[in-house]
Amino acid sequence: MIQTPRGLAMTPARLHAGAVVESERIGRKAALLACAGLMSMDAVAAGDAATARTFGILAMLIVLAKAASFVERFKQPAVLGEIAMGVIVGNLFLIGFDFFEPAKKDPILLFLAEFGVVVLLFQIGLESSVSTMVKVGMRALMVAVVGVAAPFVIGVWFVGPVLFPGGSFNTYLFFGATLTATSVGITARVFQDMGTLQSREAQIVLGAAVIDDVIGLIILAIVSAVVKSGTVSLVEVLVITGKAAGFLVGVLVAGRYLARFFTGIFIRINTGLGVKLALAMGTCLMFAYVSSLFGLAPIVGAFAAGLILDEVYFRGFADATIADDVRAAVKDSDASTAKRVGAVLERHARHHLETLMAPISFVLVPLFFIYTGMQVNLVVLNDAHLVLVALGVTFVAFAGKLVSGIVAGPVNKWIVGWGMAPRGEVGLIFAVVGKQLGVVDDEEYAAIIIMVMLTTLLTPLVLAWLIKRQR
Amino acid sequence: MIQTPRGLAMTPARLHAGAVVESERIGRKAALLACAGLMSMDAVAAGDAATARTFGILAMLIVLAKAASFVERFKQPAVLGEIAMGVIVGNLFLIGFDFFEPAKKDPILLFLAEFGVVVLLFQIGLESSVSTMVKVGMRALMVAVVGVAAPFVIGVWFVGPVLFPGGSFNTYLFFGATLTATSVGITARVFQDMGTLQSREAQIVLGAAVIDDVIGLIILAIVSAVVKSGTVSLVEVLVITGKAAGFLVGVLVAGRYLARFFTGIFIRINTGLGVKLALAMGTCLMFAYVSSLFGLAPIVGAFAAGLILDEVYFRGFADATIADDVRAAVKDSDASTAKRVGAVLERHARHHLETLMAPISFVLVPLFFIYTGMQVNLVVLNDAHLVLVALGVTFVAFAGKLVSGIVAGPVNKWIVGWGMAPRGEVGLIFAVVGKQLGVVDDEEYAAIIIMVMLTTLLTPLVLAWLIKRQR
Repeated sequence: MIQTPRGLAMTPARLHAGAVVESERIGRKAALLACAGLMSMDAVAAGDAATARTFGILAMLIVLAKAASFVERFKQPAVLGEIAMGVIVGNLFLIGFDFFEPAKKDPILLFLAEFGVVVLLFQIGLESSVSTMVKVGMRALMVAVVGVAAPFVIGVWFVGPVLFPGGSFNTYLFFGATLTATSVGITARVFQDMGTLQSREAQIVLGAAVIDDVIGLIILAIVSAVVKSGTVSLVEVLVITGKAAGFLVGVLVAGRYLARFFTGIFIRINTGLGVKLALAMGTCLMFAYVSSLFGLAPIVGAFAAGLILDEVYFRGFADATIADDVRAAVKDSDASTAKRVGAVLERHARHHLETLMAPISFVLVPLFFIYTGMQVNLVVLNDAHLVLVALGVTFVAFAGKLVSGIVAGPVNKWIVGWGMAPRGEVGLIFAVVGKQLGVVDDEEYAAIIIMVMLTTLLTPLVLAWLIKRQR
Repeated sequence: MIQTPRGLAMTPARLHAGAVVESERIGRKAALLACAGLMSMDAVAAGDAATARTFGILAMLIVLAKAASFVERFKQPAVLGEIAMGVIVGNLFLIGFDFFEPAKKDPILLFLAEFGVVVLLFQIGLESSVSTMVKVGMRALMVAVVGVAAPFVIGVWFVGPVLFPGGSFNTYLFFGATLTATSVGITARVFQDMGTLQSREAQIVLGAAVIDDVIGLIILAIVSAVVKSGTVSLVEVLVITGKAAGFLVGVLVAGRYLARFFTGIFIRINTGLGVKLALAMGTCLMFAYVSSLFGLAPIVGAFAAGLILDEVYFRGFADATIADDVRAAVKDSDASTAKRVGAVLERHARHHLETLMAPISFVLVPLFFIYTGMQVNLVVLNDAHLVLVALGVTFVAFAGKLVSGIVAGPVNKWIVGWGMAPRGEVGLIFAVVGKQLGVVDDEEYAAIIIMVMLTTLLTPLVLAWLIKRQR
């Protein structure tokens, strides 16, 4: 069996050389899996526990990721703990425990992690509807644009040159792009924890964050293409933007009619919960696939799918069985009780698709974050200079977003500004893509990770303090 | 790229040769996935849509499997439709549509299918508790033993030699083994649909079916080993039986204490739904892994995990959020209403883990069945002799199980006998393992599939008729 070169810096060339070599190693396992798939009995008996071993590692990662949720005790978002746990698991090799090393390159686990982020963006799309975005309207758009433009400009023409002198323009481009990201997931979670999800500030931040995700993903597409083509071609930029915009507009216009059409057909077939979920997952994954045909990332399609999917399309489908039973139980009770219970069931029914998706995301989404954390090489952190750089990047990351609060209108501008600050998964995606493209080296990647972790860590603290102070 | 030999009968040798060749083809994809994993943007831009394409196929299979659930309209179990849909999808190449051909060997999809059957057996384990098995006691055990012994003896020394003359003893062994399987999933579903899940007949059949699954899985282990070693070694049989029994006893004794211990720890960390589910999935997958270390199939471990996991361990964890809200809503209502609602919530709380698992199984379990169906090659069905053989196998499959009704005691013996008849997923697992081991050829595999489909198809009809007649 061919050996993969170990302990070498991953330059793009090396990465690909490594990939090809890797393919031989992974190839065997993949083939074994292909055989083992439905016959693990024989596979295991024959000493090939590839599938079973993957189950074992999967079990550990799922439980470890959830164990990390103890950070919620300290009012920190679980995602922070998941990433931190990933960093720990991914660096156990430093103390000679390399059980998890093969997992880092396991195609099955890599797919499940990718599946996880697709489900996450789908959920974010479900949480935010087109109508919500229209309601918060211009303010959200302005905050989003400023919240993207300011960090990008500061990142490309200030952070890059100053903190990473001698770097290529492409590197600076990616830095700017990384700073533009806003994690709607984390933002929403913070406002939710504070119980101010319905405040005007929250509405604006959520709307802006949603738009931010789309703009950020277009920027990622542009920057990636620019790095790949080596030049800033206006035509190319316009084509990519047109493609992305065209896809999204097409989805928003045609998508909802298609969704209505298909749900209409399936309601005639079967109105069970399983069908409802299968339609949702099917739409999510199919859009992820179609978006890739438009040169966009699967997560863009997944997000768009969540955006257009509306509970109203699923009215005809069965609700959680508990709802029907409760309705029957309060049938003969006094009017006010029946009314109150009815309201509860109605409220839950509106978010029933999210509830139905929850168990799937409970398992898959943390996988993406613990996996991302596993990619952090702590060796590069043993460097005072890096830490200083990371702090500088973090400072600019906050400054760039706080600026966007200024255009938020007659609201608490600080809450909006800080609400835009967390980078979370989107920032990490930028960092990973940049690293894979070879324009973001281990040190810069580590700095970005630190920045993402600090924005994720500090925002809840500050935001909570600001909201409490406002009351 | 090396081509896989096509259109060749899959002898074990060929299977392995194919596997090695396959590894080259899959190897590339696996490597691309390994790179593409978290950077589909670049991967897609570079024209490698491997991950996205898998999302697309996954979306289609999920939706197609659910579309097949229209068979429930005709009071047929959904599993039947899923397998049938798989047969259709898997044979589209006959009319020149080969979009799904690569999917048949996709290691990612194969893993997800295996994941699906693991989740299914875990659920079956959750549905049936140790206490239930003890309650139905001796009767269930007797029915289970006769329900396994009779078909096995008939299969090995009658069906095999008569219907497949000139076959090897190993082939006959697998035939007997295939006929022993009982699908507790289908059985339970039928009684549930008929609303007689609490009848003594149902209790006996469910208990017997649960024991049957364990015995059947031990038989599969034994038969597989016999086929592999080429001889019937009593010692080997005893070792395998001892291993299996030891593992299961160990799980039933130590497992529940471990489960209590870990849930106890995690309750202190976080009492969220996500943690509850992560613990359940973690236990399921870890046991699947550990069972493989005992030479057992992952599904055995998954089933054992479901058997020992008890809601009581999770009492400390959050219930479905809707429950708390409903409780609050009926707080001030009249006593009787509050009591009725409380009972509903309590009943649902007891099955909350199943409810929490449902969305995951909704997506993964049908994948296994549609995937299994995709392995049926309709070409071999174009054969009057095969159809006659299949009908013969089906007749014996029913006869063998109806015998078990005789020892069911003072109940409707026909209901018990027919309740034991459906083979479902377990029978299919035997067939697939036998095919992969090369002792079950395409024709015999097709005959088994037809038998499984017929037992799955006819049982609900007959059982419904018997139960209606009893009223």
